[in-house]
Amino acid sequence: MDTYDIAIIGTGPAGLEAAVTAKIRNKNIIVFGSVFGSEKVEKAHMIENYLGIPSVTGADLMKAYLDHAFSMGVEITQEKISMIYPMGEKFSLQSSKGEMYEASSVILSAGVSAGKTYEGEEQFLGRGVSYCATCDAALFRGKSVAIVGFSKEEEAEADFMAEYAAKVLYFPQYDDDVNVKDGIEVIREKPLGVDGEMKVSAFRTEGNSYDVDGVFFLRESIAPGNLVPGLETEKRQVKVSRDMSTNIPGLFACGDITGAPYQLAKAAGEGNVAALSAVSYLDEKRRNSK
Amino acid sequence: MDTYDIAIIGTGPAGLEAAVTAKIRNKNIIVFGSVFGSEKVEKAHMIENYLGIPSVTGADLMKAYLDHAFSMGVEITQEKISMIYPMGEKFSLQSSKGEMYEASSVILSAGVSAGKTYEGEEQFLGRGVSYCATCDAALFRGKSVAIVGFSKEEEAEADFMAEYAAKVLYFPQYDDDVNVKDGIEVIREKPLGVDGEMKVSAFRTEGNSYDVDGVFFLRESIAPGNLVPGLETEKRQVKVSRDMSTNIPGLFACGDITGAPYQLAKAAGEGNVAALSAVSYLDEKRRNSK
Repeated sequence: MDTYDIAIIGTGPAGLEAAVTAKIRNKNIIVFGSVFGSEKVEKAHMIENYLGIPSVTGADLMKAYLDHAFSMGVEITQEKISMIYPMGEKFSLQSSKGEMYEASSVILSAGVSAGKTYEGEEQFLGRGVSYCATCDAALFRGKSVAIVGFSKEEEAEADFMAEYAAKVLYFPQYDDDVNVKDGIEVIREKPLGVDGEMKVSAFRTEGNSYDVDGVFFLRESIAPGNLVPGLETEKRQVKVSRDMSTNIPGLFACGDITGAPYQLAKAAGEGNVAALSAVSYLDEKRRNSK
Repeated sequence: MDTYDIAIIGTGPAGLEAAVTAKIRNKNIIVFGSVFGSEKVEKAHMIENYLGIPSVTGADLMKAYLDHAFSMGVEITQEKISMIYPMGEKFSLQSSKGEMYEASSVILSAGVSAGKTYEGEEQFLGRGVSYCATCDAALFRGKSVAIVGFSKEEEAEADFMAEYAAKVLYFPQYDDDVNVKDGIEVIREKPLGVDGEMKVSAFRTEGNSYDVDGVFFLRESIAPGNLVPGLETEKRQVKVSRDMSTNIPGLFACGDITGAPYQLAKAAGEGNVAALSAVSYLDEKRRNSK
């Protein structure tokens, strides 16, 4: 397996500035995210204070960011990273399609995660709670699972799960019509939490409780503390120092994921610093291994 | 005297991004610096990693920054601030022309100060050492002073001093021909330090010592710790928190003055954060005074 120098998670201004700066420093990078960049930026009506580009629509500015990155040879891998494991010398990254990647350092620039965490979600993560149906479906062969889908595109994951699990309950958290395989029970209820002792035993909603062996929360963005085991966070924001380092050596964070203000210049500036800090980290590691 | 909401020192990317962001938040600002922006940016050959504007010369990028600021009504006051006094509720700012200004908050974005501090310089600041001939010339009527000029434009200050002081020794630290008034002694020696007990008594160079009552160091940029009494610095860099606040309430810093990396995206990002932190500080103060 290739080991990249730096894996960058997210293609908003923080991730792309980090990518461009890492490219200049000749690092072997992999960038995960949408080839269309950040939807939040793209949908912004008008941006007045990204210095150097006055009065620009979000769509035009996002295009300028992407064009800049592409012009420097940055490639975007269209995968969602659902888990990052710090392994000491390296990081293992698991995508929601079940692919594994390796990198010597990681820059988290996945944006702010809007959704809240449910009761028991963190407690049972890895003990019945999962963020990746594709990765973990086989573990639930013949069992009962609840899937909480935050967007229509998660329906495919529910269908896939139904190939393994004996019983799939699907809880859509959006208004669109749901179109899943026969046999999947669609329940329009608001989740409250996950119950259990050593492992998950039930999924609780407003008004009901369902006996299940597993609960899948399928969101656009995963709370950073759940994405990386052991990562220090505060109110779903990654705690960083002035050099964008986190409490995990080799792991850096930048942009909205580090907290307010949620501004483009701030995000890009932090991406720049995170990339240079990652480069220093790699240089230091190379020197020490000689 | 007008009291501005925010005084911004410096017209590089940090200062201009701060100005643009403060304007959007409807603050009454005054911006000190060159109308040509940062010379360091302007002279950069090619900049590849200011996201959204690929492969641009420093001159073109500086022009884009300035055009953006001017398009939003930012005005630049072409004065050098030589001293900032925190007065509790307000700040008093003294320019090298001797003008005084008042502001409720200050953003320091004056760039990195390249020159080193000389022995005794900080110790005798205000007790014979000064950074502003125009401000303090009258205090040296009939006395002897040494003036260390780091650029040709300081020669006018030496001429002005000669109207007051009995004896002016001028130590140019540049190669150009010196053209000062008769009676000013031009000495091409490298400064070493300032000596004295309670007050300055001598100026020491490599090889000589001169009995003087005052020593003026006239540099493009003043070490931030000497610009603001009581400001916490480390190796001539201002110590800031993640929100760009310093140890002095209402005083914020951003850009190269806060330390490496010396990068445009980092500077602009910090300017953005500093401006929003200053706005929060002003809002908080207004709430508390009601």
